[in-house]
Amino acid sequence: MIKVLRLGHRRGRDDRISTHVGLTARQWGADKVIFSGEKDTKMLESQKDIIARWGGNTDISYVGDWKTEIREFEGLKVHLTMYGLRLDDRLDVLQDDFKGDLLVVVGSEKVPRWVYHNVDYNISVGNQPHSEIAALAVFMDRLNGLKESFEGAQVWVEPSESDKLTFKE
Amino acid sequence: MIKVLRLGHRRGRDDRISTHVGLTARQWGADKVIFSGEKDTKMLESQKDIIARWGGNTDISYVGDWKTEIREFEGLKVHLTMYGLRLDDRLDVLQDDFKGDLLVVVGSEKVPRWVYHNVDYNISVGNQPHSEIAALAVFMDRLNGLKESFEGAQVWVEPSESDKLTFKE
Repeated sequence: MIKVLRLGHRRGRDDRISTHVGLTARQWGADKVIFSGEKDTKMLESQKDIIARWGGNTDISYVGDWKTEIREFEGLKVHLTMYGLRLDDRLDVLQDDFKGDLLVVVGSEKVPRWVYHNVDYNISVGNQPHSEIAALAVFMDRLNGLKESFEGAQVWVEPSESDKLTFKE
Repeated sequence: MIKVLRLGHRRGRDDRISTHVGLTARQWGADKVIFSGEKDTKMLESQKDIIARWGGNTDISYVGDWKTEIREFEGLKVHLTMYGLRLDDRLDVLQDDFKGDLLVVVGSEKVPRWVYHNVDYNISVGNQPHSEIAALAVFMDRLNGLKESFEGAQVWVEPSESDKLTFKE
């Protein structure tokens, strides 16, 4: 079970960033993506619609009490932050510790210090300000790789040299 | 010279996504990030401010005539699109063709077909809808890796197990 927990969503300001977080999590194999912060039904529904069409079983949900989500997760808990230890330096250890159950926590502007002290690892994908989407994608890519097949898709792409080839069921 | 060209920016709607594109490009070693679409001085200035503080020489600019930017670039030209050939299947070829000069084109919602026919490769990082930020990060990570040092920084992070350690010049 791979879960991604997105903290501190703000309606309006974060809707597109959070949508990218959810869809990125799905492309790199997340089974569940949980959004916290302000509840944003429209943002959640738009992701569910995309997943219904493009397949796979990634579950999209909202939780108010995100601390319990972190506290009670059984498996490897990693918070991605530009302040954390370098992914390059910890990838071997993470790969050893990863037995299939993984919680990846990605924040927004301000992540409470509680998070830093209640995960197994605070990991940086670069120590510069950039993007939680980029950090999530590269972290998952290095740890677990891209997910290639999505069951039950109504629509899919045939990779092409220079065309847009979309197929429908 | 590594350039990233971001097509079709829309003021307001895309400001945060485009900012993430620019900062992600910088973290993975871009020398220049060029934005096209609507001119958005505030978005460009906010990136320049971040770069001035965090160091490095990534140049941020706007261009109206993005076709000339693609047409006249000398070096490997790659357009990232969910419709393209799989990165997994083309990484070896790309690594062979990459001699230091690279133009990465990332789009927004609708990329004109002209782009598909005027680059060397249309490459997909996953064939699912997700995020141009994720695609850019993983593409650059696999081709070129993270950039670790940024000259002239006024502020930097010391990677830490569970603290936020920021230093100022």
